[in-house]
Amino acid sequence: MIRLYDLAGARDDCRFSSNCWPVRMALLHKGLPFETIPWRFSEKQTIAFSGQKLVPVLVDGDVVVLDKWKIAEYLEEAYPGRPSLFGCQRGHALAHFVTNWTSSVIAATTIRLILTDIFDVIHDQDKEYFRQSREQRFGMPLETVVKDRDTRVEELRRSLQPLRMSLAGAPYLSGDTPAWADYVTFGQFQWARSVSHFQLIKSDDPIHSWRSRMIDMFDQAANKVYILDS
Amino acid sequence: MIRLYDLAGARDDCRFSSNCWPVRMALLHKGLPFETIPWRFSEKQTIAFSGQKLVPVLVDGDVVVLDKWKIAEYLEEAYPGRPSLFGCQRGHALAHFVTNWTSSVIAATTIRLILTDIFDVIHDQDKEYFRQSREQRFGMPLETVVKDRDTRVEELRRSLQPLRMSLAGAPYLSGDTPAWADYVTFGQFQWARSVSHFQLIKSDDPIHSWRSRMIDMFDQAANKVYILDS
Repeated sequence: MIRLYDLAGARDDCRFSSNCWPVRMALLHKGLPFETIPWRFSEKQTIAFSGQKLVPVLVDGDVVVLDKWKIAEYLEEAYPGRPSLFGCQRGHALAHFVTNWTSSVIAATTIRLILTDIFDVIHDQDKEYFRQSREQRFGMPLETVVKDRDTRVEELRRSLQPLRMSLAGAPYLSGDTPAWADYVTFGQFQWARSVSHFQLIKSDDPIHSWRSRMIDMFDQAANKVYILDS
Repeated sequence: MIRLYDLAGARDDCRFSSNCWPVRMALLHKGLPFETIPWRFSEKQTIAFSGQKLVPVLVDGDVVVLDKWKIAEYLEEAYPGRPSLFGCQRGHALAHFVTNWTSSVIAATTIRLILTDIFDVIHDQDKEYFRQSREQRFGMPLETVVKDRDTRVEELRRSLQPLRMSLAGAPYLSGDTPAWADYVTFGQFQWARSVSHFQLIKSDDPIHSWRSRMIDMFDQAANKVYILDS
């Protein structure tokens, strides 16, 4: 069975990684049986076989695949008879663009809104590493990074305008039904709602309804983990 | 023959609209014969038949189509035997997302960098309308809008990161060959280079090489008009 090493918090059922969620949704989309293995930042040894220190790590028989986008490409190629994640070559290329957009825009802004919330849910054994590495990255204490989040959230909301515009004309980013572009974008929101009460999007935003539709998918997969936000 | 009402400057061969260029490229992609009709902001009467005041307006026999995205969809549906602009339904939906991204991100930032340059190339008969409508929109004189452009251009360059990331793995945004997503994005750069010497992207940026490949397309269609930037 396919194994997915999946970032976990102190609780085993707290699975908050924005990079692992799209993979989980892609596996469900493909209808492939899989198990997830809760993994903590400090468990570098557990995934040493992968030759690096980050999750997601997907193990399918003797194949090891890293990086959410590479995993999506692998699943599409290895399981062509299953429902497609991309549709066609053009859809594949543009799904990559959306993946890049989520990383460089949504993730980069959202991390500054929920950084202390992440710190609160992670395992005690991860806390020193997390604080040190993130404070080095941002050049300030975690608490300072999130201090102005009530105003900074507006920047996130503005940056989501292309998604909002697309959802005005279709129920999903990928059209009538969801596919990789939806999963990779939803991963960002699932990350936030897993760890934080902080409201990223207003309830009257079309993105909020889309998020609800994504939560409902695959028998509410996104609610079968520990969730802080409702 | 298909007719495209195309925004023009004082010179008939100055065709700078970021909304008309994607349509022109799409027509070339489809290999459809067409003629462009130079149109100025003040010529509302000329396109009154379309029931509104904006270009592009595409006229194909007795069909009139407005809005660059609607025109792309029309061409794809009306000429299915010609090379596809979207590839498939997923590609279609995500091409819409890219279209929304170019409008809400690139256009919104770029206008503040080249506003006075646009003013300089437009027809005398358009200048009063242009100054008045844009100064009302921005709440300040045109000259003030662009005053800090040397620092503001960095904001544009950062916002182009998803495009840059995609171009690290493929020659075009749409993959191995260009399609609508490339044309609609290129329209933004063609707009700027038509009216301005101001350098939006550095010459060592992968986006710059992509822009050159787009300029080379269709027998250098993008160079067969009046161009200020090289």
